[in-house]
Amino acid sequence: MFLSPLVTELVEALRVLPGVGPKSAQRMALHLLERNRGGGRKLAEVLARAMDNVRECRQCQTLSETEVCGICASRSRDRSLLCVVENPVDQLAIESSGSFRGVYFVLKGHLSPLDGIGPRELGIPALLERVRGGEVRELILATNPTVEGEATAHYLREALRDQPAIAVSRIAHGVPMGGELEFVDGNTLAHALAGRKALG
Amino acid sequence: MFLSPLVTELVEALRVLPGVGPKSAQRMALHLLERNRGGGRKLAEVLARAMDNVRECRQCQTLSETEVCGICASRSRDRSLLCVVENPVDQLAIESSGSFRGVYFVLKGHLSPLDGIGPRELGIPALLERVRGGEVRELILATNPTVEGEATAHYLREALRDQPAIAVSRIAHGVPMGGELEFVDGNTLAHALAGRKALG
Repeated sequence: MFLSPLVTELVEALRVLPGVGPKSAQRMALHLLERNRGGGRKLAEVLARAMDNVRECRQCQTLSETEVCGICASRSRDRSLLCVVENPVDQLAIESSGSFRGVYFVLKGHLSPLDGIGPRELGIPALLERVRGGEVRELILATNPTVEGEATAHYLREALRDQPAIAVSRIAHGVPMGGELEFVDGNTLAHALAGRKALG
Repeated sequence: MFLSPLVTELVEALRVLPGVGPKSAQRMALHLLERNRGGGRKLAEVLARAMDNVRECRQCQTLSETEVCGICASRSRDRSLLCVVENPVDQLAIESSGSFRGVYFVLKGHLSPLDGIGPRELGIPALLERVRGGEVRELILATNPTVEGEATAHYLREALRDQPAIAVSRIAHGVPMGGELEFVDGNTLAHALAGRKALG
């Protein structure tokens, strides 16, 4: 490696970014140094500020630099409808669909006992306390349709058996809109058949 | 966009990186915030330091935080052999091949009169002065085999017509090693044929 020590250090540092290998890191470093020092400086400044100031929303655990995030603080959201997701990316996906006007609770992942991740690590006690508080009417479980996501959803469903007044639902699994049956996997098709709805 | 203002700002700032679109920027921001704050802080620090301290080697114009880069300062390099490349990435490619023990001169791109990039912008006066200084015995033109790269090489060749003592060469163009003729484009094949060498 002939690059100067500082440039080499920059290439190494850029590799913390997901999906960035040695070649891309090199290209990024040289691009910033040769063509966009202003952008590079700005990135350094915002990055330092974000790493130090972004924390978790006190109510829903999503990433936020304010104590309560924008969604939790909004007066136009239906606070009786609580959607549980695994992480901020999933929350963003649902929010981007524009089809949900309730509020969220962002677990910090899914239950994974072998990795030492139990209900406490995900913030589930706070979630249950909130649900039992009386404001929530329906809890929508939108964890991922993976083994761990399903187990997490199952755990939450069971934990709320003592609250018959609260409806607990799971997002529907089936054939994606715009997809073709030909290319949908068997497991998804099985769910789509089992979850069929009567047409009026 | 529902992400908090600071997270949104970070996603935007990450887009200065080449090849990073809105989706990847989002993934990078959330990855750093959720899983690697230490790496993010380190990146911010190195980035700020590199943007402020990396400048050009006084002798060869490559990126360097010292006044003279490691290669120009090295005593083990053959200073009579000067290889001209378009940018630090190309220099890195040649250096990585491990087949060159001379020194470099890094132009800042190629001649492009329509964009207002002439010899002065590339640092060519300094290059010519250095070549005429007497230390250089051979100048290897390793600009890219593009229209602009060829034009830049041609310009340098003509500019040194008054120095018969200095050998001016161009890197060979032809079929890449390990490649198959079947997949090599016609232009490259034409160069490979025209540049054929007699076997002993």
